[in-house]
Amino acid sequence: MRAPLPPPPYYAVIFTSQRTTVDGGYDDMADRMVALAAEQPGYLGVESARGDDGLGITVSYWRSPEDIAAWRRHGEHQIARDTGRSDWYRHYTLRVAKVERAYDWAREDGNQDPNA
Amino acid sequence: MRAPLPPPPYYAVIFTSQRTTVDGGYDDMADRMVALAAEQPGYLGVESARGDDGLGITVSYWRSPEDIAAWRRHGEHQIARDTGRSDWYRHYTLRVAKVERAYDWAREDGNQDPNA
Repeated sequence: MRAPLPPPPYYAVIFTSQRTTVDGGYDDMADRMVALAAEQPGYLGVESARGDDGLGITVSYWRSPEDIAAWRRHGEHQIARDTGRSDWYRHYTLRVAKVERAYDWAREDGNQDPNA
Repeated sequence: MRAPLPPPPYYAVIFTSQRTTVDGGYDDMADRMVALAAEQPGYLGVESARGDDGLGITVSYWRSPEDIAAWRRHGEHQIARDTGRSDWYRHYTLRVAKVERAYDWAREDGNQDPNA
């Protein structure tokens, strides 16, 4: 996923996590959290990637720290977080950051491969 | 990779990119840029993940915006950026953000799987 966003300033939550080998329900939860976050006030977008080594980075973007705090208190999000700690994650780091500058670049040929 | 860091505030460069199918030299360049960044003043750490869909997120952490600007001007980094635009990336977004809060969590059993 890629998130086209309004001009800065806005806020980013950088969530870096290492998965366990426990799979039960993880993908469903992850999909559900993305859909649920998108319904929250102040949500701007999300980007997510996980490599073969199990390290994942999800960055969600928000209008303000208050919006982030409200999402943090959401009941279903709290349950997912608890299950993440009991089952899905070995460790994670969560960072809240204020985006001050943003720069987009795209191929002029409509995102095609250069050898296409 | 996971980056243990000093307490905030510090800065994050969030680089979200979509790869082309062109592989020539990409992995070597990526490894070289990580090694070279680590030698720069103000470098704190880096985290990186790329999924099977070709979307990657790399977050590098820095002491100050001045350190980020200096790394941006580094000659070898500029060459890698030019090749990224000509060959390796369909599109990318670069965001500079000030990390205000950070929170680490890890399993008490030494990062083991809960079913290990």
